[in-house]
Amino acid sequence: MLYLVGLGLHDEKDVTVRGMEAIKGSERVYLEAYTSILGVGKERLDAFYGKDIVVADRDMVEMDSDEILRDADKVDVAFLVVGDPFGATTHADLLLRADALSIPYTVIHNASVMNAVGALGLALYNYGQTVSIPFFTDSWRPDSWLERVRENMRLGLHTLCLLDIKVKEQSEENLARFVIVGRRFHALERDFAGRWAVDREKWDDVSNTVYAVRD
Amino acid sequence: MLYLVGLGLHDEKDVTVRGMEAIKGSERVYLEAYTSILGVGKERLDAFYGKDIVVADRDMVEMDSDEILRDADKVDVAFLVVGDPFGATTHADLLLRADALSIPYTVIHNASVMNAVGALGLALYNYGQTVSIPFFTDSWRPDSWLERVRENMRLGLHTLCLLDIKVKEQSEENLARFVIVGRRFHALERDFAGRWAVDREKWDDVSNTVYAVRD
Repeated sequence: MLYLVGLGLHDEKDVTVRGMEAIKGSERVYLEAYTSILGVGKERLDAFYGKDIVVADRDMVEMDSDEILRDADKVDVAFLVVGDPFGATTHADLLLRADALSIPYTVIHNASVMNAVGALGLALYNYGQTVSIPFFTDSWRPDSWLERVRENMRLGLHTLCLLDIKVKEQSEENLARFVIVGRRFHALERDFAGRWAVDREKWDDVSNTVYAVRD
Repeated sequence: MLYLVGLGLHDEKDVTVRGMEAIKGSERVYLEAYTSILGVGKERLDAFYGKDIVVADRDMVEMDSDEILRDADKVDVAFLVVGDPFGATTHADLLLRADALSIPYTVIHNASVMNAVGALGLALYNYGQTVSIPFFTDSWRPDSWLERVRENMRLGLHTLCLLDIKVKEQSEENLARFVIVGRRFHALERDFAGRWAVDREKWDDVSNTVYAVRD
């Protein structure tokens, strides 16, 4: 059995009891650590779950999924994902590969930023589509997400914007997780526009309602 | 300390390890059981958590929150919510009351239908605003949610529609949880339109893309 286990959002204790049982009973345990990161390192997870977890980077998950799925029709294998397995980044591809190999799988859900953002006080009903904002480089400054934000604003809806992270060059800025562009919050514009310095005119219609959150 | 603990979506093992610890350490434990229900009854939770849980109906939570919060500045009290505490139904009111009484609180997140719906295969990025659909009566057939669905469809987005439940008159139909009005799925129209028999003309533009899910 392949278990796809959501770890939740903070540390080793945010796993569910069901998820913990699946991890403890698995012969191999992988941690997907390139789309998001927990507030604690692998060592804390190893100690708490009693396993030697393999940290799987993007290359391993995308290019070497056969190794992850090896013998999973005979033994239990757990693949751990920060947040929910079908949250901001879905791992549908791994499940499709498992299915093609006739490997049974179980998904164990957990909190994701997609629902936990409700704790900030804005009702989830008032959010429109979620957008992802990649890191800008000197030559690549995509701004198609601004149009999505504008669509939400026209309907009077907030936007949860998920920020790209750089796992291999960790810094506070490289690991900022999300911002909300809302219909009620005041601007922390400089902070946001500084990092995602999109075209001034396009930015102007939304810039008065940006609220930035770092966790 | 008041702990607001999300129980997740299925049974007693979907609580997180952090949530389980909060429950076990609490002097009183309440279960909010009127906006959603778990797949198992209070007895299973009592046995697994080792507590005699008080089932709190809407009247108790809304009218008698003083009893729930009693002495929570001195002892630990846990308030359990199916899914995530800030998911489809928020319990912000209870936290505001706690705050007014200088009672500290901790929120322990969990999966909600708002993110777990990702398991059905449609990316969460492609959902627009979520809507709630109340039970219709002979004299009350609100259809303002159809306009929200239409707004999403114009943007090419799916809609997660949360269906009202009747906890006190349990039946399969009274406990159906949600449907998705999507841009790709085929209709299970009869089933849906039969229960929410909105005005035929208003319904027609969305009826060709309804997909109903019961859990």
